[in-house]
Amino acid sequence: MPTSNSHRPGRHFLQIPGPTNVPERVLRAMNQATIDHRGPDFAEMAVRIQERLKPVFGTKGPVVILPSSGSGAWEAALVNTLSPGDHILTFETGHFASLWSRMAENLSLIVEQVAGDWRRGIDPALVEERLSADKSVVIKAVMAVHNETSTGATSDISAIRAAMDRASHPALLMVDTISSLASMAYRHDAWCVDVTVGGSQKGLMLPPGLGFNAVSDKALAAAKNAKLTRSYWDWAPLISGIPKGAFPYTPATNLLYGLEEALCMLQEEGLENVYSRHHRLAEATRRAVKSWGLEFCCLDQDAYSDTVTAVMVPDGIDADRVRNIILDRFDMSLGTGLGKMQGKMFRIGHLGDFNELMLAGTLCGVEMGLGLADVPHNKGGVNAALDYLSATG
Amino acid sequence: MPTSNSHRPGRHFLQIPGPTNVPERVLRAMNQATIDHRGPDFAEMAVRIQERLKPVFGTKGPVVILPSSGSGAWEAALVNTLSPGDHILTFETGHFASLWSRMAENLSLIVEQVAGDWRRGIDPALVEERLSADKSVVIKAVMAVHNETSTGATSDISAIRAAMDRASHPALLMVDTISSLASMAYRHDAWCVDVTVGGSQKGLMLPPGLGFNAVSDKALAAAKNAKLTRSYWDWAPLISGIPKGAFPYTPATNLLYGLEEALCMLQEEGLENVYSRHHRLAEATRRAVKSWGLEFCCLDQDAYSDTVTAVMVPDGIDADRVRNIILDRFDMSLGTGLGKMQGKMFRIGHLGDFNELMLAGTLCGVEMGLGLADVPHNKGGVNAALDYLSATG
Amino acid sequence: MPTSNSHRPGRHFLQIPGPTNVPERVLRAMNQATIDHRGPDFAEMAVRIQERLKPVFGTKGPVVILPSSGSGAWEAALVNTLSPGDHILTFETGHFASLWSRMAENLSLIVEQVAGDWRRGIDPALVEERLSADKSVVIKAVMAVHNETSTGATSDISAIRAAMDRASHPALLMVDTISSLASMAYRHDAWCVDVTVGGSQKGLMLPPGLGFNAVSDKALAAAKNAKLTRSYWDWAPLISGIPKGAFPYTPATNLLYGLEEALCMLQEEGLENVYSRHHRLAEATRRAVKSWGLEFCCLDQDAYSDTVTAVMVPDGIDADRVRNIILDRFDMSLGTGLGKMQGKMFRIGHLGDFNELMLAGTLCGVEMGLGLADVPHNKGGVNAALDYLSATG
Amino acid sequence: MPTSNSHRPGRHFLQIPGPTNVPERVLRAMNQATIDHRGPDFAEMAVRIQERLKPVFGTKGPVVILPSSGSGAWEAALVNTLSPGDHILTFETGHFASLWSRMAENLSLIVEQVAGDWRRGIDPALVEERLSADKSVVIKAVMAVHNETSTGATSDISAIRAAMDRASHPALLMVDTISSLASMAYRHDAWCVDVTVGGSQKGLMLPPGLGFNAVSDKALAAAKNAKLTRSYWDWAPLISGIPKGAFPYTPATNLLYGLEEALCMLQEEGLENVYSRHHRLAEATRRAVKSWGLEFCCLDQDAYSDTVTAVMVPDGIDADRVRNIILDRFDMSLGTGLGKMQGKMFRIGHLGDFNELMLAGTLCGVEMGLGLADVPHNKGGVNAALDYLSATG
Repeated sequence: MPTSNSHRPGRHFLQIPGPTNVPERVLRAMNQATIDHRGPDFAEMAVRIQERLKPVFGTKGPVVILPSSGSGAWEAALVNTLSPGDHILTFETGHFASLWSRMAENLSLIVEQVAGDWRRGIDPALVEERLSADKSVVIKAVMAVHNETSTGATSDISAIRAAMDRASHPALLMVDTISSLASMAYRHDAWCVDVTVGGSQKGLMLPPGLGFNAVSDKALAAAKNAKLTRSYWDWAPLISGIPKGAFPYTPATNLLYGLEEALCMLQEEGLENVYSRHHRLAEATRRAVKSWGLEFCCLDQDAYSDTVTAVMVPDGIDADRVRNIILDRFDMSLGTGLGKMQGKMFRIGHLGDFNELMLAGTLCGVEMGLGLADVPHNKGGVNAALDYLSATG
Repeated sequence: MPTSNSHRPGRHFLQIPGPTNVPERVLRAMNQATIDHRGPDFAEMAVRIQERLKPVFGTKGPVVILPSSGSGAWEAALVNTLSPGDHILTFETGHFASLWSRMAENLSLIVEQVAGDWRRGIDPALVEERLSADKSVVIKAVMAVHNETSTGATSDISAIRAAMDRASHPALLMVDTISSLASMAYRHDAWCVDVTVGGSQKGLMLPPGLGFNAVSDKALAAAKNAKLTRSYWDWAPLISGIPKGAFPYTPATNLLYGLEEALCMLQEEGLENVYSRHHRLAEATRRAVKSWGLEFCCLDQDAYSDTVTAVMVPDGIDADRVRNIILDRFDMSLGTGLGKMQGKMFRIGHLGDFNELMLAGTLCGVEMGLGLADVPHNKGGVNAALDYLSATG
Repeated sequence: MPTSNSHRPGRHFLQIPGPTNVPERVLRAMNQATIDHRGPDFAEMAVRIQERLKPVFGTKGPVVILPSSGSGAWEAALVNTLSPGDHILTFETGHFASLWSRMAENLSLIVEQVAGDWRRGIDPALVEERLSADKSVVIKAVMAVHNETSTGATSDISAIRAAMDRASHPALLMVDTISSLASMAYRHDAWCVDVTVGGSQKGLMLPPGLGFNAVSDKALAAAKNAKLTRSYWDWAPLISGIPKGAFPYTPATNLLYGLEEALCMLQEEGLENVYSRHHRLAEATRRAVKSWGLEFCCLDQDAYSDTVTAVMVPDGIDADRVRNIILDRFDMSLGTGLGKMQGKMFRIGHLGDFNELMLAGTLCGVEMGLGLADVPHNKGGVNAALDYLSATG
Repeated sequence: MPTSNSHRPGRHFLQIPGPTNVPERVLRAMNQATIDHRGPDFAEMAVRIQERLKPVFGTKGPVVILPSSGSGAWEAALVNTLSPGDHILTFETGHFASLWSRMAENLSLIVEQVAGDWRRGIDPALVEERLSADKSVVIKAVMAVHNETSTGATSDISAIRAAMDRASHPALLMVDTISSLASMAYRHDAWCVDVTVGGSQKGLMLPPGLGFNAVSDKALAAAKNAKLTRSYWDWAPLISGIPKGAFPYTPATNLLYGLEEALCMLQEEGLENVYSRHHRLAEATRRAVKSWGLEFCCLDQDAYSDTVTAVMVPDGIDADRVRNIILDRFDMSLGTGLGKMQGKMFRIGHLGDFNELMLAGTLCGVEMGLGLADVPHNKGGVNAALDYLSATG
């Protein structure tokens, strides 16, 4: 076990933007005997889970559950709906958007990527422009990351949908909600998203190991003609099993135990309460960052993420050194800068099973760490956050 | 939770051939806070796990760990080594061998399947014959299931290797060890296997959710030219991350906690002891079945599985009715007949974290169930098993 | 951890007559964060527990919960109701009855113990005789062990009550139900018991650590004048706290979590079902013992215990050697002979979270162990048990 | 379960001065199958625990482990060493010292209590004065509370010992370390303490349910002549069982699993490190309280506790209202004022499995709560604590 021969007192602060702090209730639910996945108890649980999942995605349609990471759920979205050589439109909003583009290329798709600076969300006007220009309807799908985990910038899916509608373009809309699902409002049906891609280890408060696809009728229709080869990821047997709680291969039973418990917790708290809690905690974090005088990675205030705040460190300072000091001294993990942001930022995750005092401890750790790492900053970030938290909620 | 509103006293007997009874130590290991998969504690654990895994596969080479079911590990084996239109040689030894063939077809491979009756292992002479006849070396890979979970028949991988060698054929050898790994002796390196496919939920005593590929140098070389598209399953970034304990996407952290604990348990018991324990428990099961006068699915005594015994029920009897009586009355799950064996057999799993008295309880449940379901049989199966267990070990 | 450096495969069979196999649900319930025992969540739980406990004792009165073993609950029964030099009437039915007498002496009471051979329950006629002879009403309390864990013999509490009534004697009736509670029918109110003594680690399926006293109005009245010193065990503050879910000192919070879960499980199964299950499993055990031709410790068929069967081994055989062989070879713990029965018997616990196949495994282990230890016996015990289980239930 | 039907997000902050936040490792250790307390695995564990316990008490002598709360361990200290009518000298340092006096009276001892204002520790000069005046050696024992949980004031046991020596008085010295053990340096042998009383739920990081007595040779000698009745608490069978890992009645097995794990954690961290960590966290807390301009209950700076800080609220403010606001709004439990301090103070527990960021979150919650409850105070408490933590350690 990782902790078996060296004890650090107290709880680790896992403030990366996922995996998030798995609540004790979820760990405990997973700590049950594995059962026969072809037996009646399992089937009933699978049916219950499906019903509980739908509101989280904002859909009345099926949600495919995959034994995979979120990347697997991306791959499933692509291979079920597209054919070799199909064009897709992507936006370079950050590291994960870039990874998705690379995955598409690996799978023999042609990626039309709109370049970006990793510091803002998708501009809906660009969506409209590109699609309107696609007179021959070469583009088969638009891929958007709802919340760029690497930058803390969101994209407005509703606005992207409207842009696609204005362009009257039939492309599918696929959205990565891995780091926004169950933390920020999301409406698969209302926004006419075709494939929503999710994972277990962020707002759903589970360990990693499950991927999700919410699927529209239009996506299902596309799947009938899609020529990319697929077997493990094939929706057809997964979806046909949903009504009877069956899976075409052995599902990750114990993660499903945890999933049901997590969905119960979200339901108990109420999804709207979950979203507003994330917003308050995020806003408190932003107040602290502003007070410190540090720069946000995200340059568009309207696009600030409610689940992760990416903070730029001044030139000449290695952000990973700051992170390591905080890890060594305060036993808190912060997110590293990914890809071309390596060393230039740290990211504060404030999502999942999280509350005001956990955030307060987190921000105190960052403020002390800035001092210990000699990062130029103003004091008072924690105070600003506390003032905001006290005045609201 | 599956058990929350209806309590059945005592422990459920999960005697399907996997998922197996997850030991309390493994569940407890999984019941730990998820940590940063990019942090130092995780990396150290991943490196330890890799070293502990190798002896279980009998290899000194890399073992790829996938967040997937065993089916995903099959898919990884195929897409990393083959190109569209490649021919592969398969043997219809049972349900899972058939599923593997179908998967290969889905992935655009040409399957040359040697028909079979689902009641024995692969005949090495047929391997030699087919490969010898393949003068133009069309066949790129031979796929074998070490232990057919659906029939309780094993195939002799060492003999298949020898047959391939006699035919001097360069095809890759891929072996599914999902229901034999860590229960029956297996030697990836010594038998010159190119890809060994494994899963977490059988002899490794974990819940489902992890897949494995042990990979030979020859398979790695094949991967360089293989044209099947791949991203999630791509070995390259998975293998390059092994030395530093890194994964290209979020790994299933808590299942890895359980994996390390399970590997420690296997090491404590000693792999040779694990294998001989499985053999004794399997032989005791067979003594019981013989005494009952029931027929084995497997018609070849030398191919009897040490992890699962598939028992035919007499014509006119619905095996699933027998299974349901046993489940309702004794809270024991037995394996159903799969595919064309549906209703014709039940399967007794005797693998994983299992001992003599658990087997004794299992066989008592079967013997009582045969009586309650009016299956013609002789008494004395339990006695025969107890006599064998008393006289040995 | 006891199991950390030497792994034995499969589950241990804990077939001592308590502590019993703690079900996973109870362990999981205990695996929750300890909370403030003076806060509102705790108080609500304590109130719920009190209501759920009453039916198990068959009372509408208060049930005191102590952080103690069952012995502590005995001591509480005595010190709350009696004064130094008070006479009590006890019956030497076995080891635990004797221990209780010794405890009473340690606490300065005068014990009138009716000698016994440890092979039967209390004779109600003797109760009537002794109390009728006590013209000056010296005897303040009659102490009875409902189920002698050391011998597998029960006493008929209802008949003892009737005998006391016939003698028109005002003595208090105190009953030890440690190894019968929640396994055999018990009616504190209906039988006019004054103090019922219970523990957590048998039919309640918890780890050890909680003791119980169900208390009649008459006992409460006696407590007002009782002069034995007391502080920790004093009912007064414990009972006054019950309505508000408060305790006079820190309660064993996590064991209380487990208690609530166990009480829910009993309620789900239904107490009458729990009792009949225990009876069937006990009867099956007795069929096996009879078939083996071994002697019961209990010589009175009507007094056979439904929770433990004590089996005499033939003269010249060391029962503990038999037990050790079974422990070493089959990883099953059986109860030792206690006190003067040391080496002369082994005891099979068949209580708590227990079912037919667990019993079947247990009896197989005993039958094999008898053979391996060269205990003269007939074969066929397991068969007799299976025949009975198949024919009933 | 307390949390089952209403979910509060994130972790509860249990900042009462015990029970403390039980670490996941300890909960997990307790989440193991209960084993036979008369079997070899249990005996080995009990022997290991005894050896690991001694350094925590600073003794080479036996440490009795009781299935009880800390109050039970007090009672054991008294009944094993004293006789009815014996005089004991106590000091009214706070609520728990008073409770101990009352317990002694309940047990028929004569208590000579030195009155106190609950705002400081024991004055060693008074110890010397009272014992020197006791020419006829009526006083049999001096009772001291090392750390008054109700006031946050410590007493200097070494100085008390010296005072007793100066008075050349033979009284036993009994010390309550319930809220100091394993958090503040303690030396049973070096300070010639006769009975040290401890509990599981504070520095030992366990749930409540275990009590401890470390016992000197002089105390053992006293036990031979002590006339208070005792059975459950009797040291003799408990101590005679220690070398063989045996208990005279069923021990609280699963709490013992947790105890061994907790002792391993203390050993891994190093006791001196544990003590200095508690000191730093306490000092940081005090810096915050001073900055807020609030009054400490403890009026003697040299007596400030390193495990709990009791903070007076200004006249006219109900401290419990402040506590309730903090509980409702921030999900943090603070300690209430006990006995005559009810409503006048709140207590911040900063002991056990606790670290800097947990403390930071705690202090942020207090600072926000002071504001929300309109308690007059200066801002800056959190900042002062962070400055101190940054500058040290």
